[in-house]
Amino acid sequence: MAGGYVGKILKVDLTTKNISTEPINEEVAKKYLGGKGYAVHLLYQYLKEYEGKGVSIKDIDPLGSRNVLVFATGPGTGVPRFPSPSRYHVMTLKAPLTGSIGSGNAGGEWGAFLKFSGFDGIVIEGVADAPVYLALVDGKAEIRDAGELWGKNTMDTTRVLKGIVGGKNTSVTCIGPAGENLIPMAVVMNDEYRAAGRAGLGAVMGSKKLKAIIVSGDKDVPVAKPEEFRKVADKCLGAVKKNSVTGEGLPTYGTAVMVNIINNAGALPYKNWQTGVNPDAESISGETLAKEYLVRKRACWGCTIGCGRISSVKSGPFQILTAEGPEYECIWSLGSTCGIKDLDAIVKAHHLCNELGLDPISLGSTIAATMELNERGYIPEEDLRGLDLKFGNAAAMVEAVWRTAYKVGFGKYLASGSKKLCELYGHPELSMSVKGLEMPAYDPRGIKGIGLNYATANRGGCHVTGYTVSPEIVGLPQKIDPLTTEGKAQWVKIIQDFTSTVNSTINCLFTTFALGTKDYADLLSAVTGWDMSEDEILKIGERIYNLERVIMGKLGFSEKDDTLPSRLLREPMPEGPAKGHIVELEKMKEEYYKLRGWVNGVPTPEKLRELEIKL
Amino acid sequence: MAGGYVGKILKVDLTTKNISTEPINEEVAKKYLGGKGYAVHLLYQYLKEYEGKGVSIKDIDPLGSRNVLVFATGPGTGVPRFPSPSRYHVMTLKAPLTGSIGSGNAGGEWGAFLKFSGFDGIVIEGVADAPVYLALVDGKAEIRDAGELWGKNTMDTTRVLKGIVGGKNTSVTCIGPAGENLIPMAVVMNDEYRAAGRAGLGAVMGSKKLKAIIVSGDKDVPVAKPEEFRKVADKCLGAVKKNSVTGEGLPTYGTAVMVNIINNAGALPYKNWQTGVNPDAESISGETLAKEYLVRKRACWGCTIGCGRISSVKSGPFQILTAEGPEYECIWSLGSTCGIKDLDAIVKAHHLCNELGLDPISLGSTIAATMELNERGYIPEEDLRGLDLKFGNAAAMVEAVWRTAYKVGFGKYLASGSKKLCELYGHPELSMSVKGLEMPAYDPRGIKGIGLNYATANRGGCHVTGYTVSPEIVGLPQKIDPLTTEGKAQWVKIIQDFTSTVNSTINCLFTTFALGTKDYADLLSAVTGWDMSEDEILKIGERIYNLERVIMGKLGFSEKDDTLPSRLLREPMPEGPAKGHIVELEKMKEEYYKLRGWVNGVPTPEKLRELEIKL
Repeated sequence: MAGGYVGKILKVDLTTKNISTEPINEEVAKKYLGGKGYAVHLLYQYLKEYEGKGVSIKDIDPLGSRNVLVFATGPGTGVPRFPSPSRYHVMTLKAPLTGSIGSGNAGGEWGAFLKFSGFDGIVIEGVADAPVYLALVDGKAEIRDAGELWGKNTMDTTRVLKGIVGGKNTSVTCIGPAGENLIPMAVVMNDEYRAAGRAGLGAVMGSKKLKAIIVSGDKDVPVAKPEEFRKVADKCLGAVKKNSVTGEGLPTYGTAVMVNIINNAGALPYKNWQTGVNPDAESISGETLAKEYLVRKRACWGCTIGCGRISSVKSGPFQILTAEGPEYECIWSLGSTCGIKDLDAIVKAHHLCNELGLDPISLGSTIAATMELNERGYIPEEDLRGLDLKFGNAAAMVEAVWRTAYKVGFGKYLASGSKKLCELYGHPELSMSVKGLEMPAYDPRGIKGIGLNYATANRGGCHVTGYTVSPEIVGLPQKIDPLTTEGKAQWVKIIQDFTSTVNSTINCLFTTFALGTKDYADLLSAVTGWDMSEDEILKIGERIYNLERVIMGKLGFSEKDDTLPSRLLREPMPEGPAKGHIVELEKMKEEYYKLRGWVNGVPTPEKLRELEIKL
Repeated sequence: MAGGYVGKILKVDLTTKNISTEPINEEVAKKYLGGKGYAVHLLYQYLKEYEGKGVSIKDIDPLGSRNVLVFATGPGTGVPRFPSPSRYHVMTLKAPLTGSIGSGNAGGEWGAFLKFSGFDGIVIEGVADAPVYLALVDGKAEIRDAGELWGKNTMDTTRVLKGIVGGKNTSVTCIGPAGENLIPMAVVMNDEYRAAGRAGLGAVMGSKKLKAIIVSGDKDVPVAKPEEFRKVADKCLGAVKKNSVTGEGLPTYGTAVMVNIINNAGALPYKNWQTGVNPDAESISGETLAKEYLVRKRACWGCTIGCGRISSVKSGPFQILTAEGPEYECIWSLGSTCGIKDLDAIVKAHHLCNELGLDPISLGSTIAATMELNERGYIPEEDLRGLDLKFGNAAAMVEAVWRTAYKVGFGKYLASGSKKLCELYGHPELSMSVKGLEMPAYDPRGIKGIGLNYATANRGGCHVTGYTVSPEIVGLPQKIDPLTTEGKAQWVKIIQDFTSTVNSTINCLFTTFALGTKDYADLLSAVTGWDMSEDEILKIGERIYNLERVIMGKLGFSEKDDTLPSRLLREPMPEGPAKGHIVELEKMKEEYYKLRGWVNGVPTPEKLRELEIKL
């Protein structure tokens, strides 16, 4: 076995209760690494198997027994001194919110501790007949009854399970009530505060009646070339510490440092993307968070950046004594796009999302869409059941979190996400989503590259698939003009490919503010023992991205879905630095497809051959 | 069949799905009327049947298949021009919160409409294997699948079911999430805002997987002597309208009119009964409610009093655009005893209790007990999960409603009620409950008679079993000194007996501010056609009360349970008109037992014979 892997994947069929392991396939690992890449490859094998049996993936119910859920680490995960190495990736063939491939990852401790428990990954098939949890302890795996855990929030679940299992390096990933209630914006939560979010991965877990996975153990993760690794790791960690973002901005203010930065660029979506300038940005900024809410900082396992925040609202109607975050995205989604400037309410609502297991980006965006629908008079008062969802109403926003998680009152509409909700009320154009997934906190009218990325990201409106904000706004690895479309196709392609590799390594994307493909080539070569070049780093990423795209094609997605909400394509930004701008998507997309070797949004056979993708 | 009855009781076995009817037993009806009395008699037959099979009632699980749930109307229910005739009674052999007999009733429309649907009552046996609801339409009954309703709050359930069934005089009684989650303080809610509360009747419904009962129809309720009835009804309605409480106080301010009255008597429990004087009473009074929150008044079906309130919190953190109430008891429990003076928060929390189906008296009192435990340092911070339950914290109180209904975070402790919670934290004396049921809003150190009633009420700490507040404070039918124990045993006995008759009639207890036993004798004689005397009115009530007490004995309750929290027996009231007073319970109880013909809290064989109770 190559270094960086502990050697085996756990396979659990919840229908038959069958548990087995299979060794990491080194050939696959060389081509797809681990994390997202290995998971995509695994999912593709299931897809082929289904097709072999005459089952079209289009007929598979995201919440049915034939959907498959994969938890995966990679060769960097859990390796001491590997930069920010705590993360794990979660993938599913078909996501409940979107019908696209489902994909998300999270930090904390769980990813690293999964490896310490003796497994590189977990594949979940079937559906349990009653709630269960998995216990992976020192190389052994068990399916256990979770009747007593069902109904508990993520924090209670975590604490109760840790109390039962005990042990060293113990960590829990689980779902909250939202996942149990099959809310299509339910997340998988680990270590109480970390979420593998987007598109309803938590609902898939809920549909399988899998409440939690607890891992524990102290297995070593081998490194192929320890001496070489020490050198390159030291160099990389030094770069991370020296970097202005990973060494200063993120440690000092957390991700919320972006609020003022993006607002100053005129690209902080406000009131459901009606503009990119939020007049109240200062009151919800990272600086305000640090000054008035921060209790202390918190780092994921093995991370030198430490962007996590422990915060507190000490008194008042939105009191919450101990919360984590909120992250930039959540401040935006529960704040800015809802026209809310009360940071107390945002911290509170964010905490409730964590407890109940909801994706704050999708929820906040759906609330914002509702607010616009409501203010324009498109929602019958009766439907709102007295929940006064208007821009700026912090109390209604906080209340909406409870209502959504349990589908009570208007919550049942919110739970379906902005796309379905806006369709229901006759105004699909007010859903600020791509492929049904709500976009995050960057208006591409002011940051053109991120618009192309939103449109072409496989899982839908996602920033972390290809975070061009790094060059376009932050100026890393180099500053480029956010308002031009020029060169953006190339940037998007490279960043998407590189990110696919990072998510397959899998460590924290934030390291890429400081580290490039060369660093990753050196790190991975030393850990695995394979000789990896910079080109190979990008090629692996491209391979993963293309195989994912093949699956997307089979799910029924095509070029028509690589688009943006009409507001961004047709309504010029009304004010600020991006005033007058729209997103000239078609132009960028054409160039992007050409660079990708795609026709109508689908990889050509030549491209697949070039990438050595076997279908 | 006698007048006042439509003639049949519906029997539903949810395990076998068997539905049958049996005619109203006229002999039983003459001895026990309807409502509570008929239900107690029915429950006793089940108890005897179980005993015949060698099953002790002590072994019956309140949430198991052998518990029985009865919904009952009486000869006054649904009779036009009968004073306030909308109510129905709910009873169960064994209540989840207390292990005592379970008993509660509610107004609205449901009771009257049950009769219009063609049934005088419903007996529920067994447990459904999946969620169901009952539809009683024009004399026909069906068990229907409630899968789509499960998880919905009481208001959604009501509206969705009404949409499905339609028809004339359609009304729904149901449980919310709290009942589904088997919270022992879950209530049965009808017409969105009316609750048959106390001791977990909703959890029994939840345990049977019975989500709702919808009734609809336009069957006439016959009156035996229409001419005579018209005369006596006119006279009684005139008296109700002329009375200062039923004609003025209640219509103008709702039940909340009592806040200032009871506070002025020094008997409004404040901060978990540490005193009976609330310095902030004015801000949570009926007068403030009327001035600042009232949208309009609302009357139950056929009621001339109209004490219901539609209220609204127009903006702010506790905004709720349309709510009903809150009633005096809820203002006290979610406000005064929690040291909370923010009426916005009280209206909001009360509304959430209605939506989620929780008993605000038990919940508020349990929160107050937690606040005292917490302030005295008896609760580990870890257990509270960041919920800052301290006296006066309105936000934490509102949040606690959500948490309790779904048992998340500290909510799982709150859900068990104050008795178990205070025992868990080593201070049972801080639970202000009798027989495990939280007492309502009258401190008996300032109103002695109500203390004897609390101690001896069969279902536990209850005010509406024998509301001596009427003579002791309101002065109806005559003013007596609240601070003396003299004569209170007699008052308690008579009021408990009379109330048992009223709850078996069954109409609204508030009518007794204006009407006496003579009026009830005349009303019931005219409706039923039986010749009923004043003595008979009291004897029926006494019979019911004694049979209930027999069941209590079999449940394991005895004289030792006829007591009060030590705070009321030993800690003198620190201030106000009742300063220095404790409750001299033993003295009153001895006299009361003598008057009742009870030994050690149990009816003697002679007493049972005298009351013609067949065991």
